[in-house]
Amino acid sequence: MAEIKVLDCTIRDGGLMNRWYFDDAFVRASVQAARRAGCAYIELGYKASTAFFDPREYGKWRFCREDDMRGVWGSGEPGAVLTVMLDVGRFDAADLPPAAESVVGAVRVACYVHQIAEALAAVETLHRLGYETFVNIMAVSEAPAAALDEALVRVATSAAQAVSVVDSYGNLTPPQTQALVRRYLGASGKEVGFHGHNNLQLALANSLAAVEAGATFLDASLAGMGRGAGNTPLELLLPQLGHPLGRLLPLFSLLETHIPALQAQLRWGYQVPYIVSGLANQHPREAMDLMDKGLGAVASGYLERVAGLVTT
Amino acid sequence: MAEIKVLDCTIRDGGLMNRWYFDDAFVRASVQAARRAGCAYIELGYKASTAFFDPREYGKWRFCREDDMRGVWGSGEPGAVLTVMLDVGRFDAADLPPAAESVVGAVRVACYVHQIAEALAAVETLHRLGYETFVNIMAVSEAPAAALDEALVRVATSAAQAVSVVDSYGNLTPPQTQALVRRYLGASGKEVGFHGHNNLQLALANSLAAVEAGATFLDASLAGMGRGAGNTPLELLLPQLGHPLGRLLPLFSLLETHIPALQAQLRWGYQVPYIVSGLANQHPREAMDLMDKGLGAVASGYLERVAGLVTT
Repeated sequence: MAEIKVLDCTIRDGGLMNRWYFDDAFVRASVQAARRAGCAYIELGYKASTAFFDPREYGKWRFCREDDMRGVWGSGEPGAVLTVMLDVGRFDAADLPPAAESVVGAVRVACYVHQIAEALAAVETLHRLGYETFVNIMAVSEAPAAALDEALVRVATSAAQAVSVVDSYGNLTPPQTQALVRRYLGASGKEVGFHGHNNLQLALANSLAAVEAGATFLDASLAGMGRGAGNTPLELLLPQLGHPLGRLLPLFSLLETHIPALQAQLRWGYQVPYIVSGLANQHPREAMDLMDKGLGAVASGYLERVAGLVTT
Repeated sequence: MAEIKVLDCTIRDGGLMNRWYFDDAFVRASVQAARRAGCAYIELGYKASTAFFDPREYGKWRFCREDDMRGVWGSGEPGAVLTVMLDVGRFDAADLPPAAESVVGAVRVACYVHQIAEALAAVETLHRLGYETFVNIMAVSEAPAAALDEALVRVATSAAQAVSVVDSYGNLTPPQTQALVRRYLGASGKEVGFHGHNNLQLALANSLAAVEAGATFLDASLAGMGRGAGNTPLELLLPQLGHPLGRLLPLFSLLETHIPALQAQLRWGYQVPYIVSGLANQHPREAMDLMDKGLGAVASGYLERVAGLVTT
């Protein structure tokens, strides 16, 4: 399975839990560990415009300024492509120099189905600037089937290198994941990726199922750090794809040295409210709100309300 | 998937982490929640002989005395079968009365491949006493293929109702699980079950894959409580099998009221040493020893040693 490319989104997605305030030392160590482990892409954060986000309220990986990225990435080291993500409508194309002048090599554009035209316009701009480009279509479980198919057909004629199935609410099972991957492959003709969420502890299994169905591009993060229940754990995915354990020592070391404190503070992962939002196929915002308030999903009535809506 | 029978092994397997010292109130609540949730079998513990285990060193669910079981089970309530487990060589058949005189309805006999004759002798005795009987063959990843096939052929002509694939070291993937389930079905002609371990966060996915391959009997425990990385989480399995969320409220309530304290004390689940033992396909004893000593799997050299042995 050597042809499967793994994207480490630890800082970008983990930052959703701490507004991208990470110690530089941790970011540097995380980058080095992911590179050593054989990740093809390392996504450092969002390239958001300060017109939309106040720099006094967000850490540097919300903005990914060139100097900040160079400060943790080092220079001249081969083996992984520095990647940033753009949210449609929240970036300014003028923030991105030509790829030849940037440490960034790849840009992912995240959008909802109804924003596909705007996303693909950004892709064209970025492609002309010399970046590898990828498209992540979010919340597909809420999109009308026809709209999704139309979006994929548009991707087909774009410059995007790949399009990713995003299990936004962590509700997919392996067979459902495979059906989506096949649909994306067929309709877009592009390389297809998968970004899982771990609400139901199926993120890794869905990732492996996606590969069986033809996906060649997988997102994961250290300890699954990310919003809510988090992502596919990088430390579990890489061994399943055949990355030698000997190259994973720095990654596992971070699990012991840095992750426990982050975990205790940010509390992503296996928590009852996130299980419930996953079962309900809902955005994790209500579950995150319960976590912030220290309320249980049963005690607060959230599960009971969901049980009335969901027939599994 | 209504025909899939779920066995709740929370107390039996969870007791491996606390020598079966549980509050009666928790055991009662757990039994009631599992029954309400639609578990077909509830396994309260081991029926071990006091000749092998000192009652001053183990809680009551190591021994499952008739009075103790009746004290938490209640009487006359339908819907689930009280189950106990026997370890070959560690029980005394004289401890088991005829089924008609016992609150126990089913007995599972756990053995290694080389103990199959002794296990099936126990099955015959138990069957004559009127119990439903099941066989769990442990550590199959270490057994020679011919020995396993021979054991399964012996099961075929026994009184056992079912035989379970046990992923003792938490190393299986969904395709590997399916291959084993098919092999067990073909060789034994019996109903086949699956007992997963969650070292690599694949216990649930393996359980669902086992069902696709024809398994009809699945073990799970609340929050996956069990030795080392623990088992398939009951709260995740039941919704995937179509058990209505409305009947799972007491189960989820326990996750909020009782599990956090047990988790903080016993620390089963997603811990680096257990990931490493899973990747290495090793018994969790070394990982449990590191956990007891508060040593990391990287810091102690365990991962590096394993990396030298394993080529994934």
